[in-house]
Amino acid sequence: MLVQGKQFRTIWLKEADDTIVQIIDQRFLPHEFVIKELKTAAEVIVAIKDMQVRGAGLIGVAAAYGMYLAALEATSNHSFDPYMVKIAAELKASRPTAVNLEWAVKRQLLSIDRGQSTEDKVALAKATAKKIADEDAGFCKSIGVIGVKLIEKLSRQKNGGTVNILTHCNAGWLAFADFGTATAPIYEAIKMGIKVHVWVDETRPRNQGANLTAWELLNNGVPHTVISDNTGGHLMQNGLVDMVITGADRVTRTGDVANKIGTYLKALAAGDNRIPFYVAIPTSTIDWEISDGKSEIMIEERSPDEVKYVQGIADGQLTKVLITPEESPAVNYGFDITPARLVTALITDRGICDASEFGILGLFPEKIEA
Amino acid sequence: MLVQGKQFRTIWLKEADDTIVQIIDQRFLPHEFVIKELKTAAEVIVAIKDMQVRGAGLIGVAAAYGMYLAALEATSNHSFDPYMVKIAAELKASRPTAVNLEWAVKRQLLSIDRGQSTEDKVALAKATAKKIADEDAGFCKSIGVIGVKLIEKLSRQKNGGTVNILTHCNAGWLAFADFGTATAPIYEAIKMGIKVHVWVDETRPRNQGANLTAWELLNNGVPHTVISDNTGGHLMQNGLVDMVITGADRVTRTGDVANKIGTYLKALAAGDNRIPFYVAIPTSTIDWEISDGKSEIMIEERSPDEVKYVQGIADGQLTKVLITPEESPAVNYGFDITPARLVTALITDRGICDASEFGILGLFPEKIEA
Repeated sequence: MLVQGKQFRTIWLKEADDTIVQIIDQRFLPHEFVIKELKTAAEVIVAIKDMQVRGAGLIGVAAAYGMYLAALEATSNHSFDPYMVKIAAELKASRPTAVNLEWAVKRQLLSIDRGQSTEDKVALAKATAKKIADEDAGFCKSIGVIGVKLIEKLSRQKNGGTVNILTHCNAGWLAFADFGTATAPIYEAIKMGIKVHVWVDETRPRNQGANLTAWELLNNGVPHTVISDNTGGHLMQNGLVDMVITGADRVTRTGDVANKIGTYLKALAAGDNRIPFYVAIPTSTIDWEISDGKSEIMIEERSPDEVKYVQGIADGQLTKVLITPEESPAVNYGFDITPARLVTALITDRGICDASEFGILGLFPEKIEA
Repeated sequence: MLVQGKQFRTIWLKEADDTIVQIIDQRFLPHEFVIKELKTAAEVIVAIKDMQVRGAGLIGVAAAYGMYLAALEATSNHSFDPYMVKIAAELKASRPTAVNLEWAVKRQLLSIDRGQSTEDKVALAKATAKKIADEDAGFCKSIGVIGVKLIEKLSRQKNGGTVNILTHCNAGWLAFADFGTATAPIYEAIKMGIKVHVWVDETRPRNQGANLTAWELLNNGVPHTVISDNTGGHLMQNGLVDMVITGADRVTRTGDVANKIGTYLKALAAGDNRIPFYVAIPTSTIDWEISDGKSEIMIEERSPDEVKYVQGIADGQLTKVLITPEESPAVNYGFDITPARLVTALITDRGICDASEFGILGLFPEKIEA
C-alpha cells in the first residue's frame, strides 16, 4: 500500500543483499517512518516481541523470514536441524496468542525438511518465506474483493450515502504483508468509488488504531476519524455506525474470535444495536485444534508499563509519559475472546461464512469427513 | 478524604479570607498536588470548563460557590439581579450534561431571592454554597453506608475473600465535596475491614481513572489496579469482577444513566456475564423532567485534542504527547447513555432502588400523586 505516495510492503528482503530482512519499524509510527534491517533470527525474535512488527499475519511472515535467517546461520553450524528446532521454538514463544506464528514456523520446518543439503534447505527456507509473504498478501487481496460486497450492499441501502465502518486495533496492511484484513474491503471500496468513512478506535494500551490504522488510512486517502475506545457504543446507539469489521489473531473451529483486547466490548455493543459485526481473516487464522475460545486460547499478558505510559510526540521528540501514580499497579491483557454468537459472519479469502463450525466447514469441503 | 495523610475536601473557602474559594486543581493530578485560588465567578466558570474541577457533584458545588462570588461582585454593581441571572446562565452552560450544575445554580437563585438587602443576599449565597457542599458530602456519606451492604454480602458469599469491584471514570471524592459516590461504599468497606480490590478503568480520553481514581485510592489505602478501558470485558468473562459501581452525571426519572463515555460498554459486559452493575448517585442527580436518556439528554462534545493528545509526566515535567497523525481528525463525546435495563440498581442517599420509574418513586413517596 501507499506511504507518502510510494508502494510498500511491511517486510521484504533487501534488494542489494538478500541475506538481510527489511521491515517498517512500527514502534515509531505515525511520527517517524523508519526502515529497519534484521540480520539474524535473534533480531527477528526481538522484533516480534518488541512489536517492531506486529499483527496476526505479519508476525507469521516475519517468523518465516526468521526461519530463513536461522537457516543461513545454521549452515555455519554443525548441527543444522537442532538449531532450526531451537529457533522455531523461540519464534513460536515470542507472542503466544496468534495462530499464524505457529503455522508459519511449522510450515518452514516441513519445507526445510525436504532439502537434501544445507544449501537446499536454505534455498527452500528462502522460497517458503517469500511464498508465505505472497500468499498472505494474496489472501488479504481476496478478503478485500469478497468483503467489499458487504459494503456495496450497505451503500446501496443508503442510496450511495457514506457507509460508516468501525474498526478496532490495526488489522490493516501494517498487520500483514499487504492490504490487511479488516481494511482490505475498505481499500477495495475506495478503489470502486464507494463512499466510506472509518471510525478508528485508538486501541489502548498500545494505540495501534491511533498510531497505525489512522496513519495507513491517511496515506491511502480513506476518510476516517479517531475515537477513544470508550466511544463506539455511543456511536452505535446513535446510528453513526453501519458495520464493524475487525481482524483476529486466532479463530476456533467453532467461530470464537481472539482479537485485540476490547473487541468483545464492541461486539456486545454491535449486538445490542443490531449492527453487523464482521471478522475478516485469512483462513490460516483458523485453529482447527480448538473449539472453545475462552477456555482454550492463551491470552498474552504484557508489561504493565504499556498501560502506565503512553508514547507520542512532544516538541518533535518521541516521548513516553506516565499517566498513573507511579505506585499504582496495572495489568495488561493483550487480547480477549469474542464468542461466536456475537459475530455476524467471518470474511475470509475463501468466502463469507457463519461464525460456526458448520459455517466454517462449508468453506472447507475437504475437511468434511465422508 | 486523605491526601498524603492529611484530610481535605475538594473545594472550600480560604481560612484567612472567605471571599476566596480554594480548590484542588485536578488537571495536575496525580503528578502534582496544586491548590488553586478562585477569586471571581468568571474564574469559577473557567475552572469548570477547563476541568480544574470536574465530577457530577463537585461542579454543582463549585457553581454554588461561583454564585457566591458573583453575589460579592454584584454588590459593587447597580443591577444585582440581572448580573446574578447572567452568571447563573453562564455557569449552567459551562458543562451541559450534569444535572447538579443546573440544580445548584437554581437553588442559589431561589435562596438569594429571599434576601432583602444585597448584604443579605451575599450572606445567603455564602450560606447556601456551604450548605450545598455539606449536603453533597453528607449524601455521599449516606451512599457509602447504604452501598457497603452490597459489598458485605458479596464478601460473605466469597467467605471473606477479596471482592473485586470495577469502576469507570472518577466518581470518587474528587468528583464531589467529599467521599464520592461509586467510591463511598468502597471507603466504608475498607473502614470495616472488608477485603476489596478495585479495577480502575483508565477512562480515555481524559484519563480520570488513571489520573484521579488511582490517586485517591492510593492515598486512602485501597488496593487497586489500573486497566485500559478495553480490559473490563475480559476480566468479567473470567470471573475477575464481582460487581461494577459507577457514578452518573444525570439519571432520568425512568432510570436511564448518563455517565462518562464508555459506561454503556461496561454495562453491556456486566449484563452478558451476569455481574451486578450499580450506579451510585445522590438523588439530586435524578432529572425528574425527562424519561428517555437517549433522546433527551444532551451529550457534551469536547475538543478533539483531548483524543489526539495524552497528558502525563516525562522527566518530571507535565507533558502532552500527540498520539495520532497530525492530520487525522478525531471526535470526543464526553458521555454516553446506559439504558435502565442494564442497571441492576441505583445506590442513593435515600436507599437502594431499581433503575425504573417505580423503583425511583419508591424512594420519593412525596412525589407520588394521590
